[in-house]
Amino acid sequence: MQMLLAINVLCKDKPGVLRDIAALVASFEGNIRYTQQFIRTKGRHAGSAAIYMEIENLADAHQLSQKLTALDDIDSVAFHEPFERIWGSRVIIIGGGAQVAQVALGAITEADRHNIRGERISIDTLPIVDEHNIAKAVNAVSRTHRASILVLAGSLMGGKIAEEVKKLQSEGFKVIALNMAGSVPEVADLVVTDPIQAGTFAVMAIAKTASFDLDRVSGRHF
Amino acid sequence: MQMLLAINVLCKDKPGVLRDIAALVASFEGNIRYTQQFIRTKGRHAGSAAIYMEIENLADAHQLSQKLTALDDIDSVAFHEPFERIWGSRVIIIGGGAQVAQVALGAITEADRHNIRGERISIDTLPIVDEHNIAKAVNAVSRTHRASILVLAGSLMGGKIAEEVKKLQSEGFKVIALNMAGSVPEVADLVVTDPIQAGTFAVMAIAKTASFDLDRVSGRHF
Repeated sequence: MQMLLAINVLCKDKPGVLRDIAALVASFEGNIRYTQQFIRTKGRHAGSAAIYMEIENLADAHQLSQKLTALDDIDSVAFHEPFERIWGSRVIIIGGGAQVAQVALGAITEADRHNIRGERISIDTLPIVDEHNIAKAVNAVSRTHRASILVLAGSLMGGKIAEEVKKLQSEGFKVIALNMAGSVPEVADLVVTDPIQAGTFAVMAIAKTASFDLDRVSGRHF
Repeated sequence: MQMLLAINVLCKDKPGVLRDIAALVASFEGNIRYTQQFIRTKGRHAGSAAIYMEIENLADAHQLSQKLTALDDIDSVAFHEPFERIWGSRVIIIGGGAQVAQVALGAITEADRHNIRGERISIDTLPIVDEHNIAKAVNAVSRTHRASILVLAGSLMGGKIAEEVKKLQSEGFKVIALNMAGSVPEVADLVVTDPIQAGTFAVMAIAKTASFDLDRVSGRHF
C-alpha cells in the first residue's frame, strides 16, 4: 500500500462542501481510500460538519492543507493516524443481550492477547431483539467500515436472518453462530455451543498473529 | 429533522468519483448528513469503492438514483435505512482486556433492556495496552461517528491519556473511568469501582428511556 494520510476537516454544514473538498483532493492526485463525514452534535463544534479522509498517493499534503484552509467554509484542518491503525478490524456481535455479552467476553479477552502483540482488533456489539431488526443489522454489516467477521449470538434465529447471512457470505464475510434453534446454524460457517469460545474463534479467524484458518473447520459444530 | 434517506453506491476505486457523486447530490439540493466511503476488501465486490450517504432535503431521490446509475464509474445504487436506526448511539470502552470485558458485560446487558424498548445503543470496545496507544484511541473518539460516551477501563491511566480526556470533554463528551491509579480518575466525569456498574451507568447516561442525568452525579466516586 502507498503511504496513507488521514486528514480531518471541520467545516460548515451546507450543501457542496464535500464536493469542493473532494475536488481539491482529486486535483492533488489523491486517491480517497476512506471518507467519513458527519455533523458534530455536541461540544464547541456542535453543528459543524467533520470530514475525515484517508488519502493515498497525495502529491503534496502541505499544499492541500493550505488550499483547504483557504476555503471559505472550512474552519480547521488536522492530520491524524488512519483508523485502521487505531481501531483496527472489527468483530461484530449481534443478538440477545445475555449471549452477546458472553461472546464479547471471549472475543475481548482473545483480542487483548493479539493487540498486545501489535494487532488492532476491536469488538463491536449490538444487543437487539426481533427477526426483522436483526436481519437489518446483518444486512448493514457489509456497509460497515472495517467489519471483518460476524457472530450471531442468540437462542432462536432463522427466516430473514438466515437469508441475510447468505447474502453477507456472498460478500466474502464469515459468520459464526451459537448452537441455537432456527435455520441460522444451518447456513453459518461455524457453529459453536460455548459463547466464550465463539468469541475466541471469531478473533482467531481474523487475527494475523493466530494460526487458525476458519475454512479448515468450515461447517463444523463445536 | 427532515426526512433522511440513505443510499449506498458501489463504484470504481479511482480519483474523482466521490467528487462527481457529491456534485450530483448537491445539484438535487441534498444536504449530506453522513458519508462513509471505503474500499471493499472481500467478496465479489472486492476492490470496488462503496460510498454510503445519508442525505436530507433531497429534491428527487428517484431521479438522483437514475443519474447516479448513468455515471460511467458506478456499478449499483441501493437505498437503505440510516445507520442511526440500525447501530444507534455508541458506548466506547477502551482499556485492559479483563476490565473492558467486564464493563462491556454491564453495558451490553443494560443496552439490551433499552433496545427492547425501541432504542438503539451499541457497545464498541477496544482492548489495548500502552499510554501512547490508549491516548491515540481516546483522541479518535470525537472523530468516530455516533460515539456518545467513553468508558476507560484499566488499573493505571494518566499522563497523555488524561490530557486527551480533557480534550474530549471540551468536545462535549462525558468520560467514565474505573476507580484506578493515575490521574485519569481526577479528570473523569464519573469514577466507578465496579466495572459492571460503570457499563450500566454509561448506557443509562445516553439512553433516552432512562431517567439518569450524569451531570447530577458529576465528579462523584461510586
